[in-house]
Amino acid sequence: MKVTVLRLGHRIFRDKRLTTHICLIARAFGADTVIFSGEEDKSIVESVSDIVERWGGPFEVRYEKNWKAFIKKFDGVKVHLTVYGKPIQDTIEKIREIKQNLLIIVGSQKVPSEVYNIVDYNIGVTQQPHSEAAALAVFLHEFFQGKELKKQFENGKIEIAPQEKGKKVIKIN
Amino acid sequence: MKVTVLRLGHRIFRDKRLTTHICLIARAFGADTVIFSGEEDKSIVESVSDIVERWGGPFEVRYEKNWKAFIKKFDGVKVHLTVYGKPIQDTIEKIREIKQNLLIIVGSQKVPSEVYNIVDYNIGVTQQPHSEAAALAVFLHEFFQGKELKKQFENGKIEIAPQEKGKKVIKIN
Repeated sequence: MKVTVLRLGHRIFRDKRLTTHICLIARAFGADTVIFSGEEDKSIVESVSDIVERWGGPFEVRYEKNWKAFIKKFDGVKVHLTVYGKPIQDTIEKIREIKQNLLIIVGSQKVPSEVYNIVDYNIGVTQQPHSEAAALAVFLHEFFQGKELKKQFENGKIEIAPQEKGKKVIKIN
Repeated sequence: MKVTVLRLGHRIFRDKRLTTHICLIARAFGADTVIFSGEEDKSIVESVSDIVERWGGPFEVRYEKNWKAFIKKFDGVKVHLTVYGKPIQDTIEKIREIKQNLLIIVGSQKVPSEVYNIVDYNIGVTQQPHSEAAALAVFLHEFFQGKELKKQFENGKIEIAPQEKGKKVIKIN
């Protein structure tokens, strides 16, 4: 069972940092792949690939022009995170039980209305305006029930040794 | 017991969206106040105040020039979210038990090293690079144990009625 995150509507100038955060959140909180749509942006692929090389994987990032075809042909359960959707606390248990691949869709400012109709679940992480970064992180945290906090990555070059004060980075490999 | 979020090192041009997200995450996930430091930026206060007016409160946002004095004189427990800190899963229980005010500090790119020393806890939400937005959201979600997802806000003008498909906004007041 693989978890894929699809970031819709990326705009090179306006969304560079938030899309990068979305990619890193997907990786850190246990997803396998992140795909972004909207404007093609090699710098996103490069900076996330650089993180994967240094901090470990496996994790894939790539651009997809045709998000609609991608969603439609995705083999698995499709979830769209939106403030308008059903509360996560009422739906997450059902989603945890699926034994299929999972696609989690997060938008940028405006999500085309057809997205709401071609997914299996529209889910709200609170019914308040906040951030697609927060929605994705809390959704993955709930989906993996906190186990993702201890995820081990492979073939990285550095690792953090947690400290009460200060910083300690360990070089491996 | 009040929860305050302190966002360090705001830069007007580079951080506008992320700092706004931090403020909205603080509000949506149950904090009472957000304070930002770094460059003074009225647009942050205005846009977050506008959200509070439309979606409800109480929630306070304000700028503080002297973050160091603010942290030092804060009456309560001080937590700094940093990838270098101790894992959240090992520390959150102790923090939940405090009966004092809580200050949660999140940085921007570079956090001055003295921050690590003037707080009570340095806590990592994973030991992987991702996003201060995600770290804050997951920390608050863990701190409030999911109860924040149902938080009711007061005196807002609009509210969302969760839907399986589509969008439904209710006008109140």
